[in-house]
Amino acid sequence: MIIIMRMGAAKEDIANVLNKIETDGFKAHPIYGVERTVIGVIGDDREKRPEPFERMPGVERVERVLRPWKLAGREFHPDDTVIRLNGVSVGGESVVVMAGPCSVESRDQIMDIAHAVKEAGATVLRGGAFKPRTSPYSFQGLGEYGLKLLREASEATHMPVVTEVVSTRDMPLVREYADVLQIGTRNMQNFALLTAAGEAHKPVLLKRGMSNTIEEMLMAAEYILAAGNPRVMLCERGIRTFETATRFTLDINAVPLLKQLTHLPVIVDPSQATGKWDLVAPVSKAALAAGADGLIIEVHNNPSEALSDAAQQLKPESFGALMDDLRLLAPAVHRTL
Amino acid sequence: MIIIMRMGAAKEDIANVLNKIETDGFKAHPIYGVERTVIGVIGDDREKRPEPFERMPGVERVERVLRPWKLAGREFHPDDTVIRLNGVSVGGESVVVMAGPCSVESRDQIMDIAHAVKEAGATVLRGGAFKPRTSPYSFQGLGEYGLKLLREASEATHMPVVTEVVSTRDMPLVREYADVLQIGTRNMQNFALLTAAGEAHKPVLLKRGMSNTIEEMLMAAEYILAAGNPRVMLCERGIRTFETATRFTLDINAVPLLKQLTHLPVIVDPSQATGKWDLVAPVSKAALAAGADGLIIEVHNNPSEALSDAAQQLKPESFGALMDDLRLLAPAVHRTL
Amino acid sequence: MIIIMRMGAAKEDIANVLNKIETDGFKAHPIYGVERTVIGVIGDDREKRPEPFERMPGVERVERVLRPWKLAGREFHPDDTVIRLNGVSVGGESVVVMAGPCSVESRDQIMDIAHAVKEAGATVLRGGAFKPRTSPYSFQGLGEYGLKLLREASEATHMPVVTEVVSTRDMPLVREYADVLQIGTRNMQNFALLTAAGEAHKPVLLKRGMSNTIEEMLMAAEYILAAGNPRVMLCERGIRTFETATRFTLDINAVPLLKQLTHLPVIVDPSQATGKWDLVAPVSKAALAAGADGLIIEVHNNPSEALSDAAQQLKPESFGALMDDLRLLAPAVHRTL
Amino acid sequence: MIIIMRMGAAKEDIANVLNKIETDGFKAHPIYGVERTVIGVIGDDREKRPEPFERMPGVERVERVLRPWKLAGREFHPDDTVIRLNGVSVGGESVVVMAGPCSVESRDQIMDIAHAVKEAGATVLRGGAFKPRTSPYSFQGLGEYGLKLLREASEATHMPVVTEVVSTRDMPLVREYADVLQIGTRNMQNFALLTAAGEAHKPVLLKRGMSNTIEEMLMAAEYILAAGNPRVMLCERGIRTFETATRFTLDINAVPLLKQLTHLPVIVDPSQATGKWDLVAPVSKAALAAGADGLIIEVHNNPSEALSDAAQQLKPESFGALMDDLRLLAPAVHRTL
Repeated sequence: MIIIMRMGAAKEDIANVLNKIETDGFKAHPIYGVERTVIGVIGDDREKRPEPFERMPGVERVERVLRPWKLAGREFHPDDTVIRLNGVSVGGESVVVMAGPCSVESRDQIMDIAHAVKEAGATVLRGGAFKPRTSPYSFQGLGEYGLKLLREASEATHMPVVTEVVSTRDMPLVREYADVLQIGTRNMQNFALLTAAGEAHKPVLLKRGMSNTIEEMLMAAEYILAAGNPRVMLCERGIRTFETATRFTLDINAVPLLKQLTHLPVIVDPSQATGKWDLVAPVSKAALAAGADGLIIEVHNNPSEALSDAAQQLKPESFGALMDDLRLLAPAVHRTL
Repeated sequence: MIIIMRMGAAKEDIANVLNKIETDGFKAHPIYGVERTVIGVIGDDREKRPEPFERMPGVERVERVLRPWKLAGREFHPDDTVIRLNGVSVGGESVVVMAGPCSVESRDQIMDIAHAVKEAGATVLRGGAFKPRTSPYSFQGLGEYGLKLLREASEATHMPVVTEVVSTRDMPLVREYADVLQIGTRNMQNFALLTAAGEAHKPVLLKRGMSNTIEEMLMAAEYILAAGNPRVMLCERGIRTFETATRFTLDINAVPLLKQLTHLPVIVDPSQATGKWDLVAPVSKAALAAGADGLIIEVHNNPSEALSDAAQQLKPESFGALMDDLRLLAPAVHRTL
Repeated sequence: MIIIMRMGAAKEDIANVLNKIETDGFKAHPIYGVERTVIGVIGDDREKRPEPFERMPGVERVERVLRPWKLAGREFHPDDTVIRLNGVSVGGESVVVMAGPCSVESRDQIMDIAHAVKEAGATVLRGGAFKPRTSPYSFQGLGEYGLKLLREASEATHMPVVTEVVSTRDMPLVREYADVLQIGTRNMQNFALLTAAGEAHKPVLLKRGMSNTIEEMLMAAEYILAAGNPRVMLCERGIRTFETATRFTLDINAVPLLKQLTHLPVIVDPSQATGKWDLVAPVSKAALAAGADGLIIEVHNNPSEALSDAAQQLKPESFGALMDDLRLLAPAVHRTL
Repeated sequence: MIIIMRMGAAKEDIANVLNKIETDGFKAHPIYGVERTVIGVIGDDREKRPEPFERMPGVERVERVLRPWKLAGREFHPDDTVIRLNGVSVGGESVVVMAGPCSVESRDQIMDIAHAVKEAGATVLRGGAFKPRTSPYSFQGLGEYGLKLLREASEATHMPVVTEVVSTRDMPLVREYADVLQIGTRNMQNFALLTAAGEAHKPVLLKRGMSNTIEEMLMAAEYILAAGNPRVMLCERGIRTFETATRFTLDINAVPLLKQLTHLPVIVDPSQATGKWDLVAPVSKAALAAGADGLIIEVHNNPSEALSDAAQQLKPESFGALMDDLRLLAPAVHRTL
């Protein structure tokens, strides 16, 4: 931490800051500049909040030196984490494609779609049974029955299943049926849920909060990791900006930046990030080219009758065409599919 | 709902849309314009999502006509909701000031602060026992012990208590101690928690998600109202923008706009919205002048040793001075304090 | 400037940075921490960009210590700047209200409105003759004829005139007619125009760019000040955020923060910031309560026929009622009107 | 345009709106719904602003049906525009790479870099002679001397030159030396400059304003097109969001969306969009995969001594490696390089 004093800060104010640093168990190292005094705090102050210093008389602001995460960062864990799901590896050379409907709606629907995406080359099945919906009057998912159907589709197609858990209350239930627990964008800072996911002994797909920074996403991952679960995948799914022509703005910069900062696999969700089915293919290709370890794509056999997110789901044919494109693209960026 | 067809949409596409509208139980009313056809949907289509139409061939986009909320809006409930808490009314002519520390830290701390804010004129006590923290390594609150201390301070000062509940799991516990259940910014779209608050038979202070629109805030309130709890206060607490000179950007426009759209009381949190104690007073006055029904302000007796949000907490003296200013200001905007 | 080295940066990389600091004419002060080395740069490095250091091997990032502005800040100019315009003072105890139509449309229109706002208590006349419009097909203003009409209205009502200049090409013309040169939001970083305004020997009303930070606004003011013109007023007029329920989001926090950082007067534009005439009054009151030195408000005698910004202009009656409210409010925040 | 009346709007209010529509020369088509009346406006109302209706009593809001642009859109110009620059085509099958330093700094510097990027495969030379800088104390470019050096480098390497023009005043000068006129992000809504570019008889590279929507970018292009210049290239260069880990957020969704909406070529600037040289390569690949027609990349032979944007410029070696990667990637997305 570096503490920047106001111009003309009183000697006494400087002395108080130096004092507090030492009392807190760190070493203080002041630099007396031309206009201001700056004080370096020496020691591992990662768990120390800067605010108490900001509140002291004479202090202008505090800058952190050490990054606030430990377990999620590459500094103490330089090698890529590879997560294994019944024969599918996430985070290695091969790019994983997770596909399926936004919501599980019926037995026929999920079975049809599961077979279609499997045939096109997907290796993980996605589908929502508990749906977080903006309106209390919208379809909220089939709940446990939806989980059962997902399990059945998973077994029929030999694909592991990723599905969302929206509440600590549902965690025991969802754990029982899912291979990967998805934490959705609206729950990225639901810390009780993160801790529960950390104790769940299942891989977690952590979606970025729609207005959370990359640092906050890594701190959310840190909650899961610190609770004892090392199998976390991060998912960039678009952030909220002033642009309304698309549902969200995919932060493509985040993909290579996350690969630098963390050893955890990085997945991209082009369906949520665009909200428009006809942008899903070009944006999926962009994500792969930027270095994503996987994609999670919404596919529906009858989108205009879908009970949620109809506008952004691909038909199986378009998904098949996209998979062909991705197979062509992967070797050009030194990946396999 | 109004469905805007693409330029040159095929007759068949238009027919299919007209058909689907009728099948869904509504009346279709097409307008054949110079370049495009536009189709009005007649009937209460509030619970109908626009996406299925957006996904149909020939459709360019869909605009909603009816606002998606019912219970939260003034249209069917024109009069202001006034919420009574042991003698304190929220939403009437009198402006309520809720004050107390960010976190409850000890018996002495909460008792001292409660007496100080009471003496300065606050009528509701705030304090956090379960704290949602960005880092798993930060102080997470005293939990049930904190709730007990809040209760004790509440009884000693005869002020009702507002405190945050962060998880459905904690709801039964928090209900027992709190007079008002606070749903924090990171949980505004934690729909399981909203539903639990709707069933809790206690007034709720619902904070705006830091990147949620006013429409989404009203839909979150709708979850609580629809679950049977009519006592909801809305809280504007700053939104996330590109500006980093303050912690958040207080959306002052939202205050009078909410007063137009909804009958629910509107509270403003200047502490969270600015993140800087020396901006709290002017911004509190602005909120009152803009029409807020109340303020919720962080006060700490020793901010530079506070275990959370040290930079934004007022000292009791500054809080007292602010209360004096507010007492002067209230009559100038036709309110009492 | 403080240079934060990467964890495990090579000794040679550190030596190179120390070297470059000294070569650039500053003193280097390294702090060898537990995990990283941090290097303080001693001297007035305000005009030194941090990027060259960021690009050096082993450097993680650079934090600035000194604020980048000089002339705009309070550090070397603690007292408030008061700008005098023919008998009207901006920046003193008295709050100034500038009012008039978005665009000058005709002789009758501007004369009528000028008399109406004068009578209601405005002391400066606003009106646009050169209009920056999003669409090339929209009304672009009356140009020089509009300026002549403004001048005539100004003389008839004895109010100084503020009007926008959109191009260096128009500067000589606008200078001739205007008492205050307005730089609009879309030109806040049109540096050629800022420099021209700096050389124009007229007071300047500098509007904040809709997505510019407070720091960038102060740097834009610095361009004008550094070119020799000390008479700059800053105007908060709403920033662009994700919220679309209002046209922009008024950054009310910016008002007291600017008053801390700079000695220049701070004006608020509630018309642009809300885009809705029925939010103008409460937001004007909020701005005054937050400490603004003035308001600039759009008033039109027939808003639904206005050639620009029809939705946000007040009618003279509503403006009169607002002035009454402001006269009640000003003493409660220790100002006069 | 569709005019949505408030619930319970008076008959007289509806009649007034119907009246105004007819008076304005359009046909009105009311739909009397269950709760509200909605009125369709029939005719080409593109140049009609919605605000006057929004201001009428009883009107809740107005939605536009027709897109506001004409010349920039695909609706009346379905085929791609291909812009030819001395043998280089922009907008066709082949992807163009424009490269060079942020600023021209000296004869040696620009000649060295021009040769290096040419050798690596760039076909257009970029370089700034007039630099828009946030601080008045930063290097502002070499001006006309910089233009002369660019011209010399252009002739030596047989590459056309793109360079920024920041003011109408400089337009005649820059026109003389440049092959492509760049309008920078801070000037995207400098309408005087757009009009001047429209009259300049040179191709224009129009950068997206850092906080402008896609619709606003198309309207800015419309200014140039409507002034008689059909040779406009659009450039996505990152938008301003809450994320500060990168300089801007590249809006990758905008690339395929622009390709749908407009016939104009779409270029991406990964240097500005990321602000970090080590993210330029993955983001360049993403842009190509998403369908960009070209890239504009900053390359410097000695980045840590660069006079501007040091952190984001590639060294010639890294640029060469990126070009190799792009050559591998282009055929996988059906493009050539």
